Amino acid sequence: MVDWMSGLIGTVPGFFPDCLTMALPWLAEVSEAELEPLVLASVLLSLIVVYLAAKIGGELCARVNLPPVLGELIGGVVVGVSALHLVVFPGEGGTATDSLLMQLVGWVSGLQPEDGLLRVFRGESEVISVLAELGVIILLFEIGLESDLKELIRVGPQAAVVAVVGVAVPFAAGTAGLIGLFGVGTIPAVFAGAALTATSIGITAKVLAELQKLSSTEGQIIIGAAVLDDVLGIIVLAVVASLAKTGEIEILNVVYLVIGAGVFLIGSIFVGRLLSPYFVAVVNKMRTRGQVLISSLIFAFILSYIAAAIQLEAILGAFAAGLILAETSTHKELEKQISPVADMLVPIFFIVVGARTDISVLNPLDPANRPGLIIASFLVVVAIVGKVVTGFVVFGQPGINRLAVGVGMIPRGEVGLVFAGVGAASGVLSDALDAAIIVMVILTTFLAPPLLRLVFQDADTPSPTEEEALPASTASQTSGPE
Amino acid sequence: MVDWMSGLIGTVPGFFPDCLTMALPWLAEVSEAELEPLVLASVLLSLIVVYLAAKIGGELCARVNLPPVLGELIGGVVVGVSALHLVVFPGEGGTATDSLLMQLVGWVSGLQPEDGLLRVFRGESEVISVLAELGVIILLFEIGLESDLKELIRVGPQAAVVAVVGVAVPFAAGTAGLIGLFGVGTIPAVFAGAALTATSIGITAKVLAELQKLSSTEGQIIIGAAVLDDVLGIIVLAVVASLAKTGEIEILNVVYLVIGAGVFLIGSIFVGRLLSPYFVAVVNKMRTRGQVLISSLIFAFILSYIAAAIQLEAILGAFAAGLILAETSTHKELEKQISPVADMLVPIFFIVVGARTDISVLNPLDPANRPGLIIASFLVVVAIVGKVVTGFVVFGQPGINRLAVGVGMIPRGEVGLVFAGVGAASGVLSDALDAAIIVMVILTTFLAPPLLRLVFQDADTPSPTEEEALPASTASQTSGPE
Repeated sequence: MVDWMSGLIGTVPGFFPDCLTMALPWLAEVSEAELEPLVLASVLLSLIVVYLAAKIGGELCARVNLPPVLGELIGGVVVGVSALHLVVFPGEGGTATDSLLMQLVGWVSGLQPEDGLLRVFRGESEVISVLAELGVIILLFEIGLESDLKELIRVGPQAAVVAVVGVAVPFAAGTAGLIGLFGVGTIPAVFAGAALTATSIGITAKVLAELQKLSSTEGQIIIGAAVLDDVLGIIVLAVVASLAKTGEIEILNVVYLVIGAGVFLIGSIFVGRLLSPYFVAVVNKMRTRGQVLISSLIFAFILSYIAAAIQLEAILGAFAAGLILAETSTHKELEKQISPVADMLVPIFFIVVGARTDISVLNPLDPANRPGLIIASFLVVVAIVGKVVTGFVVFGQPGINRLAVGVGMIPRGEVGLVFAGVGAASGVLSDALDAAIIVMVILTTFLAPPLLRLVFQDADTPSPTEEEALPASTASQTSGPE
Repeated sequence: MVDWMSGLIGTVPGFFPDCLTMALPWLAEVSEAELEPLVLASVLLSLIVVYLAAKIGGELCARVNLPPVLGELIGGVVVGVSALHLVVFPGEGGTATDSLLMQLVGWVSGLQPEDGLLRVFRGESEVISVLAELGVIILLFEIGLESDLKELIRVGPQAAVVAVVGVAVPFAAGTAGLIGLFGVGTIPAVFAGAALTATSIGITAKVLAELQKLSSTEGQIIIGAAVLDDVLGIIVLAVVASLAKTGEIEILNVVYLVIGAGVFLIGSIFVGRLLSPYFVAVVNKMRTRGQVLISSLIFAFILSYIAAAIQLEAILGAFAAGLILAETSTHKELEKQISPVADMLVPIFFIVVGARTDISVLNPLDPANRPGLIIASFLVVVAIVGKVVTGFVVFGQPGINRLAVGVGMIPRGEVGLVFAGVGAASGVLSDALDAAIIVMVILTTFLAPPLLRLVFQDADTPSPTEEEALPASTASQTSGPE
């Protein structure tokens, strides 16, 4: 293995001359190669911290009857930029010494920041970021696998109404309120209003899975609406970003996104269903280990890549792949095999979301935060009320838990932070408005999981499919070893 | 998710000004942040190629009764630097345009190499490299889990003899032959001799698992010897590296390595066995999903990090962790859960080993290769014979397959390439000798899997533990879905 070179190179400084022959495959650029074992060591340390934070946070929340995913988010906050500075990213602080883990790696290896410790930090951050992204891809693939395409199509009209209302109401109320009550200019108000529209599908889906409500009618409406909301969010961001930049809307780009999203979602599912029998036939003929899992991952990653390449989100492709494979005969086997992979990767995503959240903007003792907090309290109210009302526009589904549908749309998650980021970067948002958006995102994200559990537990209206046997992988609250 | 920013940023060049506020957590360094979605897209593409190569190679080999892992190595060669240039690493070629995948990413995103495509390439390579390292860590953890500590201790003396003879004979024969037959200088001859000593534990262990011979007496002797060989290899490399550099041996460093390795291997197993009942008690009290897997990964990664930090290999820590957990009551559950994780990560390791191997040195039509090939044929003979003899020094084990033990020690794998790399970098090796070492590594690595299968299948001497029920995860040759 390469990593045992590190010891030698570490103890023999200047051992490698700059001239290297091509016969030295992965050492032709020594500076990178001698850092590689340190990147691995840093990734191992980061994963230890990530998993400890996820398990401690998740277990503590499970014990006080809160969703484990909330514990993972809070665990992330504790180890992240807001508190312990163990899992931090170069963009947030700049130097390797901001990361306590990097200080440890530097101390153990004797490497100074100027000698390449910052590059190790960048490499480690890159790996952890991509692992987190793979985590949410696997999560949405699993959610797709556990969803029911027919049920999703059946509740499609309702989901579409929920998505559209959930975009329109917070946007209109937020923009109007900012202009009317706070005297904010039109373009910044439109931008902040747009930030109120997005729904974080990852957090909602994870809580639904934990509550074993994913395949309920409410669950499928929420998932369908959240997927459409994701697409609408991409379009809204494109509109407001071009508005903020040029004062005009680039119609062509919007048309391209709308057509692309429609063609991809409908096309992938249509073509996928046509091809899936051949897929199963090939998988059944395979003899080597992991044939179901690897073949399915190839399929999921191809759709994820296509979705990312046409400027949608990779997670939409993963969700579509899951939906398609859910209808094949291999899906039970696949669910069993994807479950440990999800157990390994998904917590990295939630810890990273928490770790990247700087909660210092929530501190009311800092006078600089106060203007933002006042606007934020308005935005939080609009964000929650604007999504909760969506449950009451669902038609033709008597007896469903309307409050649960609305509450399921509340978390803004990292999608809202992207709006704040684009807004701040384009200079249209004042510091106070920018901070207010971040506070709104934090509160909706962290409040939604306990609220969702509350409204599902309080309700005494069992949904028609609730009793269906759920795959073991969605059962989060088992006691003892699985 | 961040990746849907890429579309916007891609279509709106220069959208982000350089001045960014701190309120923009993961965009404070825009240049990195706008490339991040492209890194994810590149990683997805790379994983698609890696998995396709692994499955096609593995399946083809399984059909002609060769070990699937050989198919993965060859699949790696096909997609790597020797042929298709799909999975390549910056150190090997230098620019992003060397990678066909990067050309595709650049074409789709409109990003030019000078605009950051090379940085995307570096990020993608970093992630794939670390995933490969995590793959071999998980492999050795799984091997440890499937090993039997008591059996390993029982065959310990035999394994030690095999390891020592397997280091001494190739080293002595190789060094003497190079000096006597080829007139090579003492220091380069010692270096090349040293490169003959290492055993690639990963390849041998994987083949043994595929053959379901891991828990046989032969299997446990090979694994024990390969682990000791790994430690001896680290010490030998330290000795020859300091010899090549200063002409002297740094005794202190060698003593440090020997003591460190001994304390770590014995200490981790001793302390681990003391602590493992508490570990099981904690895991049994946990209620959230994935508690067995995540807790075990935390343990494995801690030991891996410690092993890497004290200048041993991370895989030795992972192996020790597996051995310790194999004795706990959770080990059946853990084996079941680690299996899909291994299915996902281990192929990345073997594909990357293959992809990094430049087989052009094997071409006899290129006159520049001929001096190296002549020396190489000598080294290959020494490398094979020097390890095969080790099976015949095993004492006190009547009826074992001595040939299998020796053949199991043949593959040099990536460990041998590290010797070639250090030798080339330090300037002591001539081009011909350096190429000869690489040819020796390639041939022993690629020949060992089919040879090992051959000697195990030909033998009609069932070993005492052969009939033991093996965990499903080691069964590689099942037909149909698992």
